[in-house]
Amino acid sequence: MAVDLYHFEPNANGGKPLIALIEKGVAFTSHWVDLLNWEQHQPAYLAINPKGQVPTLVHDGAIITESTPMCEYIDEAFEGLPLRPADAAGRARMRRWCRYADEFLGPSLSMVAWSRFIGPMMRQRSREELDRALAAIPTKERIKAWTKTIENDFPPEELAESQRRIAFAAGRIDAQLGQTPWLAGETYSLADIIVFNMAAGLPSFMAERINAQATPHLLAWIERVGSRPAVREALAYSRNSLRPIAK
Amino acid sequence: MAVDLYHFEPNANGGKPLIALIEKGVAFTSHWVDLLNWEQHQPAYLAINPKGQVPTLVHDGAIITESTPMCEYIDEAFEGLPLRPADAAGRARMRRWCRYADEFLGPSLSMVAWSRFIGPMMRQRSREELDRALAAIPTKERIKAWTKTIENDFPPEELAESQRRIAFAAGRIDAQLGQTPWLAGETYSLADIIVFNMAAGLPSFMAERINAQATPHLLAWIERVGSRPAVREALAYSRNSLRPIAK
Repeated sequence: MAVDLYHFEPNANGGKPLIALIEKGVAFTSHWVDLLNWEQHQPAYLAINPKGQVPTLVHDGAIITESTPMCEYIDEAFEGLPLRPADAAGRARMRRWCRYADEFLGPSLSMVAWSRFIGPMMRQRSREELDRALAAIPTKERIKAWTKTIENDFPPEELAESQRRIAFAAGRIDAQLGQTPWLAGETYSLADIIVFNMAAGLPSFMAERINAQATPHLLAWIERVGSRPAVREALAYSRNSLRPIAK
Repeated sequence: MAVDLYHFEPNANGGKPLIALIEKGVAFTSHWVDLLNWEQHQPAYLAINPKGQVPTLVHDGAIITESTPMCEYIDEAFEGLPLRPADAAGRARMRRWCRYADEFLGPSLSMVAWSRFIGPMMRQRSREELDRALAAIPTKERIKAWTKTIENDFPPEELAESQRRIAFAAGRIDAQLGQTPWLAGETYSLADIIVFNMAAGLPSFMAERINAQATPHLLAWIERVGSRPAVREALAYSRNSLRPIAK
């Protein structure tokens, strides 16, 4: 059995399958794909994932893309700790949180993070390097997203709206965690893994609105998820390649 | 066992759980929620679904929202024809198509459909009725979407981009169906149900780009899915409330 995971930093999408594999005790080979050096658009990677998206899981030749379905795949394909509630209603609650993370929280967070971290890093590169990199991107959507980032084309009102949405989502997550220990109910599940990957940085990222007074249940849960041995092991894959750049 | 489905027309989101329930032979009570008369924002419905989204499934008191996770719930909670591939890789393929439908095809289709059908219908109502209806909408996102529709605030370049995306998606679906009889592979699954609900109208909706010459596999599959007894039964719930209005 061969399991290969192609990933970048263990946050947002990359951290989801990394944590899931380690939680289940699956032996796998980690392949670092350096998004900031555009390795995801190199022919070798495009042969595995034609859209140039990271992460990708390769299991005995089967290529699994898209990190959230990938997590369900990991739970279905491998033995070990179940990462989904045992009952259908619990799984429905789990999937609702996964969708909420991917469709509501994720895009807002991503806009703020790209504007704050990736944009400034990119603007330190030469125009030639950036043009070469843009030319290698396989999809129109991604060219648009990278161009927006490089050119810092994030209108202040869109950034403010994204921050409003992040704070709103943090409030909803906090309210749920005031009622149940884990997002889908009584058991730790993929919902916790997927939301944790997006939410773990929020207390430092938006300290004025997400903190021990405003969202106490969220902060306690971040601590609880983050101290799990599997999560600590996954976070150790970090190379700290995303750092804010002083203006 | 009580199963209640609150739904509108059997297309887009409403048709998904309707087809899934009928395919599995589940006895349920259908409740029509007239979106065009804003019944989804009435207190009675908001008590079931606080966001005012349709459809909602209520199963022995458990409230299940969001049509795609709802379909997985239906397959997990009830006996009958399995609507997901038996193996993890097949289920991963199925979930990728479901996401593709919800995240890529759906929003584009929705923009074109709201602009072409719902907007003109709304502009026949009085300003007073529209203002009353807008005031009852529970979320900012939905107020924005309805205002955009009523005011016909769809820039031509956005509509053109949506049409480009729909045609692109139709091409991808057609390519898959040239390789396998069903979207996730050898068996009919929720991917077929979910994509069918969005794609069935495309040959009449965008006849110049989606037709028997350009996308033959897609058209044959629409015919194949549409002639299933369960799908025919679901489509019979239609009240034909969405009709284009002559300008």
